[in-house]
Amino acid sequence: MVKINDNYTKLPGSYLFSDIAKRIARYSEANPDKKIIRLGIGDVTQPLSSSIIDALHKSVDEMADADTFHGYAPDLGYEFLRNAIAENDYKSRGCDIRPDEIFVSDGAKCDCANIQEIFATDNVVAVCDPVYPVYVDSNVMAGRAGDYDEEQGLFDRIVYMPCLEEHGFAPEIPEKTADLIYLCFPNNPTGAVITKDELQKWVDYANETGSVIIYDAAYEAYIQTEGIPHSIYECEGAKTCAIELHSFSKNAGFTGVRLGYTVVPHELVRDGIELHSLWARRHSTKYNGAPYIIQRAGEAVYSTEGQKEIKELIAYYMRNASYILEGLKEAGYSVSGGVDAPYIWLKTPEGMSSWDFFDYLLENANVVGTPGSGFGPHGEGYFRLTAFGSYENTVEAVDRIKRLANK
Amino acid sequence: MVKINDNYTKLPGSYLFSDIAKRIARYSEANPDKKIIRLGIGDVTQPLSSSIIDALHKSVDEMADADTFHGYAPDLGYEFLRNAIAENDYKSRGCDIRPDEIFVSDGAKCDCANIQEIFATDNVVAVCDPVYPVYVDSNVMAGRAGDYDEEQGLFDRIVYMPCLEEHGFAPEIPEKTADLIYLCFPNNPTGAVITKDELQKWVDYANETGSVIIYDAAYEAYIQTEGIPHSIYECEGAKTCAIELHSFSKNAGFTGVRLGYTVVPHELVRDGIELHSLWARRHSTKYNGAPYIIQRAGEAVYSTEGQKEIKELIAYYMRNASYILEGLKEAGYSVSGGVDAPYIWLKTPEGMSSWDFFDYLLENANVVGTPGSGFGPHGEGYFRLTAFGSYENTVEAVDRIKRLANK
Repeated sequence: MVKINDNYTKLPGSYLFSDIAKRIARYSEANPDKKIIRLGIGDVTQPLSSSIIDALHKSVDEMADADTFHGYAPDLGYEFLRNAIAENDYKSRGCDIRPDEIFVSDGAKCDCANIQEIFATDNVVAVCDPVYPVYVDSNVMAGRAGDYDEEQGLFDRIVYMPCLEEHGFAPEIPEKTADLIYLCFPNNPTGAVITKDELQKWVDYANETGSVIIYDAAYEAYIQTEGIPHSIYECEGAKTCAIELHSFSKNAGFTGVRLGYTVVPHELVRDGIELHSLWARRHSTKYNGAPYIIQRAGEAVYSTEGQKEIKELIAYYMRNASYILEGLKEAGYSVSGGVDAPYIWLKTPEGMSSWDFFDYLLENANVVGTPGSGFGPHGEGYFRLTAFGSYENTVEAVDRIKRLANK
Repeated sequence: MVKINDNYTKLPGSYLFSDIAKRIARYSEANPDKKIIRLGIGDVTQPLSSSIIDALHKSVDEMADADTFHGYAPDLGYEFLRNAIAENDYKSRGCDIRPDEIFVSDGAKCDCANIQEIFATDNVVAVCDPVYPVYVDSNVMAGRAGDYDEEQGLFDRIVYMPCLEEHGFAPEIPEKTADLIYLCFPNNPTGAVITKDELQKWVDYANETGSVIIYDAAYEAYIQTEGIPHSIYECEGAKTCAIELHSFSKNAGFTGVRLGYTVVPHELVRDGIELHSLWARRHSTKYNGAPYIIQRAGEAVYSTEGQKEIKELIAYYMRNASYILEGLKEAGYSVSGGVDAPYIWLKTPEGMSSWDFFDYLLENANVVGTPGSGFGPHGEGYFRLTAFGSYENTVEAVDRIKRLANK
């Protein structure tokens, strides 16, 4: 008789964003006339830019001809894309990352969920609290999280690093040593960033303790402030302790296109083995490459025209972020994030719980956000809004919230 | 100090197809003037058909406009595709599979590697010998395979089901009870098929013992003979014991496009839990959907025009299969497969080892195949050729092999 992986039964409820979708569907069904504005899930709304569309059409045409048809992609991804990434995301920032240290994938979500597989199940994992749920859930499924304490909302083998208001909603180095540390800057969900000097402390800590940092840089393109690092490899010694994840979803609007990449430097060695070789083995055994046409679309992001378009797209969303940030301040909310990140982190009014505030906003302003408690216990009493809506919808949503506050 | 997943160190050598690629590269470099014909890795060579190309262009255009842009896909895949699959691959064959039992993914390779994650690590796994390496390797990585015996080339916790000549290179039900049974028909690598009555015996066995069958139907479109089942759900009771995997790679030429799906019926329950809910949870946590434009391409496969084109494509490759089969027979080889499958399984001459025959063919005929021993110890002394080349190359390769035999 087959036995199931009972770690799955330890997962509390379903995946956060599935929960939200169901709650919206229920409200919509009961109130079909209401125009709901979604600033909840971090999904983009603006179309792909023209260089990307052109690259897609061109590569689709290549697939129509036997002479230019592309079958299975190389294990690590096409060289044209890995070269463009190495040149633009690393060399131009003074980071010495080689193309063969870059693994192209179908997105940062999959990579951040899968990367734990190359580590032993008895490693201690540290995550921010609040945190993007995938880091925790993927470790729960693998049996690395221990048991769930319903009352506290915490797993007993995970080290939680609270992101508190007094530290700008960024985590501090934990007192208990952790083997695998998940960091995300600009942070999802709080929108916090840290300086290069501050990030250097994490790198030094990891090199001292032998920990590995899983650095999620999915939102780096949103950094506006000088001195905020775009890559952990800007820090000295990061190549011996850090794996970095990147996404094309948020800078180039690829949420429905699916492309990302992970960097595992050759210098990152544990137990005498290059982690690069383990990830390469996982990649070649359990994955089969991103579609050729999508990798060509990724290449187009790095063209001169593509870079110009991407900057405009980010400016578009950052205008939304500004509007939300200022509007909520005017409405009397306590807010942070939204300056170097597409996420605005707000304190719920009058000690309302996150889910109560979710329902309150949905029912009274028909605006959807994400309950902070969905990201962890220290997210309770907070709420995340994203800048990824259209400008018109964002303005309308914020104006509705302002009117509600003035009632 | 972080510890690595030391199950990876139990994997013997690198992934089979990476090995082959390296050996070809070495030979090519030393002999740049030789025209190598690849009938090794199961990669297709013919372009995408015009309905698929049209669907791709059309959906790319949708991504260029905010009103028709698509971000994150639904967890299980778009309904338009799941409906088309349920209708064409199941309802039309009398199988009662509902669209919400179908999980769209980026390919059968990923699904067959990932599916084991929802099962406990102490389950006993049974695989064919020879076998598609991903079934074994993914279980090794998860710690389910035990230790590797170098001499035998076997893992000590895996139940191997030899596929012998006397049974037409199909497996027999193992004497030792297994919890998780991987079956693949039409078989990769042997090209063997079994009748519905024979498959029914496996289903009955699984229902009696509580085992779960992972049924890889990646090559079902190649079945030509009446009475050979295209889906395990054609058998009575399969919905309480089987998960089925499908690929668009081999029927529609999607190896570089990446699309597949997995069926987990609601009736498949173990430990009181629907396996459907576990796979759904894995899907929503560790995966983020196939690209919108690729799912539209998949939909086009099921259009009237698409089906016509697909049939022509399969006929094209099956003409190759025939040519290989007949040609090798004429050259005095003992061959099987190639009738209901795109793979031809041949016995190496004069007791030559599989890798020796690989080198022999590469060096003397400049033809690449896959060594049978790469698929398991019972593949030793055998060799796989695929029908996925162009017709011209296939003819040339076979003619070269024939000339070699006549020397």
